[in-house]
Amino acid sequence: MVRIATMRDVAGRAGVSVTTVSRVLNGTGYVRADTRRLVEAAIAQLGYVPSASARGLVASRTGLLGLCLPDVGPVADLAAPARHGARGAVEVVTDEAEPGVLSWGSRYFGEVVRGAEYAAWQAGYTLTLVVARPPEVEARVRELAGLVDGLVVVAGTLPDDLLEHVAHRVPVVLVAGPRPAGGFDHVGVGNARGVRALVEHLATDHGIRDLVYVGGRADAPDEIDRARGFHAALRALGLPAPGRPGPRGDFSRATGRRLARALLAERRRHGTPLPGALVCANDETALGFLDVFTAEGVTVPDEVALTGFDGIHEGRHATPRLTTVEQPMTDLGRLAVELLDACLDDPRLPRQNRVVPVRVLLRDSCGRH
Amino acid sequence: MVRIATMRDVAGRAGVSVTTVSRVLNGTGYVRADTRRLVEAAIAQLGYVPSASARGLVASRTGLLGLCLPDVGPVADLAAPARHGARGAVEVVTDEAEPGVLSWGSRYFGEVVRGAEYAAWQAGYTLTLVVARPPEVEARVRELAGLVDGLVVVAGTLPDDLLEHVAHRVPVVLVAGPRPAGGFDHVGVGNARGVRALVEHLATDHGIRDLVYVGGRADAPDEIDRARGFHAALRALGLPAPGRPGPRGDFSRATGRRLARALLAERRRHGTPLPGALVCANDETALGFLDVFTAEGVTVPDEVALTGFDGIHEGRHATPRLTTVEQPMTDLGRLAVELLDACLDDPRLPRQNRVVPVRVLLRDSCGRH
Repeated sequence: MVRIATMRDVAGRAGVSVTTVSRVLNGTGYVRADTRRLVEAAIAQLGYVPSASARGLVASRTGLLGLCLPDVGPVADLAAPARHGARGAVEVVTDEAEPGVLSWGSRYFGEVVRGAEYAAWQAGYTLTLVVARPPEVEARVRELAGLVDGLVVVAGTLPDDLLEHVAHRVPVVLVAGPRPAGGFDHVGVGNARGVRALVEHLATDHGIRDLVYVGGRADAPDEIDRARGFHAALRALGLPAPGRPGPRGDFSRATGRRLARALLAERRRHGTPLPGALVCANDETALGFLDVFTAEGVTVPDEVALTGFDGIHEGRHATPRLTTVEQPMTDLGRLAVELLDACLDDPRLPRQNRVVPVRVLLRDSCGRH
Repeated sequence: MVRIATMRDVAGRAGVSVTTVSRVLNGTGYVRADTRRLVEAAIAQLGYVPSASARGLVASRTGLLGLCLPDVGPVADLAAPARHGARGAVEVVTDEAEPGVLSWGSRYFGEVVRGAEYAAWQAGYTLTLVVARPPEVEARVRELAGLVDGLVVVAGTLPDDLLEHVAHRVPVVLVAGPRPAGGFDHVGVGNARGVRALVEHLATDHGIRDLVYVGGRADAPDEIDRARGFHAALRALGLPAPGRPGPRGDFSRATGRRLARALLAERRRHGTPLPGALVCANDETALGFLDVFTAEGVTVPDEVALTGFDGIHEGRHATPRLTTVEQPMTDLGRLAVELLDACLDDPRLPRQNRVVPVRVLLRDSCGRH
């Protein structure tokens, strides 16, 4: 029986990855000269011929990968006219402590994009961005799908039917959120696991038994998993479920402050004691609480422990430094593009689901350690 | 005399921008239905016909704009394998205060990209990224130039000959750095002006007369302008130039710490007094100094005033909060793409040079106000 050599056989013979073989064949991406010679030798030895359909696929490729990002603020800032002082003069203003801008948007752009760009570059692709910004998302995404070889989509940014439509044209990898029902490769974050590990630390190492979860936007995929992790941890630890739902924010620092002021007002009016720990859905929310606690003389962690999720820079440098669950967002973008690259190399690969590991970072806001 | 109507005439009649007319003609970008009707009416009234060459131009467009970014770290981080704990387990680690990652890279990706993407979207384009990452920058950039309608390039990322080559194919707008010798549209930052205004504040409002400039990487375009602004301010104020060159860092927090330790060691060994103010080339450097000063019990601003440049989040939340010169980086990306869009609309436009205004943000690290 004659077995026809595949790209994988070439990779195995040359001792390199399939991606490298693909890069040599397509003439895209950087391959060291000696590696290229190894691959070419393996191709010659095995008599490898790219299949006609594979060749067609290669020929029709544009070398572009798309990344579809959520529309996160503050676009209002961007849309405002640039500040101009008097001609040539530089405005000098006193910058009071004030609500921070929502840094989530920057994080997505800064880190997911950076990781995705890096992996795309490594695989010989160029990254193109599309933000799911109303009202013309659909037209834009359809246009992009006609232009790219594959698409990474942040979960929750596109309606299901549009996603299905696009997936008929090019491979799609979903990023973040829960594992999708089917049909898509997915890179997720250990949201539930992370919150659970954090709650276990608060209960076991600090002996805190009355924990309150401060939620984010109820419909956000990450929120659903984080809340699930919180309640799973309480059950696993044999702690009672809270008597009433905890406060719910929207992931912003400003709303975190509003919730903190409401909590303190309730304490003043009704003598409601503070909980032992506030487990916040994200760092921004926790920092909002911290702003108000600091201003009102409530000591963290002595009077109440406080934790976040995300691992943003501000939390690292807050006073006290914020204990959090860090999600490596560059890895999210990077892994998603690596999956996409693998699909493009071999469309017959089974669907993959990867979870980017998170880390609980113990700092000062959860208690002395 | 019969005058042939231009796109500008249509815009004037309809009371909209040329960009909007172009979007209606190209069928790209979002235009409100009533605006579209105004434009269509103006086209009909004026008997406007896009010129054959303009039509050809439109037809050959891909709708893609490129953004060429510097290769800023930490790629090492990205290239490292993802951290995996024991199967399913979440790593819980004590996160001591430690050198921060270089946030400049994230800032470029986060804010310049965000601003550029937003402006591209508004003008009906899609943004494609290329990072000037060795060793194959040239091939990548040439490839991209064949794919996009125009290119925004961060100053200093591409060699001059490559830039010239690309500029023969598509319009190029340079971003940051000093105004280029010629031939390119440019969007700059008020680096010198900003430092000068800051030094004037330190000298005039706080009466500080012995200021030391802590530089960044000597070859960085921003560094050259900021150092220039510092020395121009001393001259304008009649203050003596420093007796010897100030310390030089590399824009990183880690190096800022190293310089701070060296400064304190010198004070201990030789009794050298601290200067009245350390004017740092950027926020990261200033935060490095602040880290060491805080650890060593040197009080800012009482013993030494400290300032940065950039306006990063960490400076806003530092203790004491860091006085700085804020550069609106989203505006950099946005303005660059707006210039590019204008060139694409009308290739006969004269070369433009725009300076994004900066603001001095007075916080607590420069003294009481």
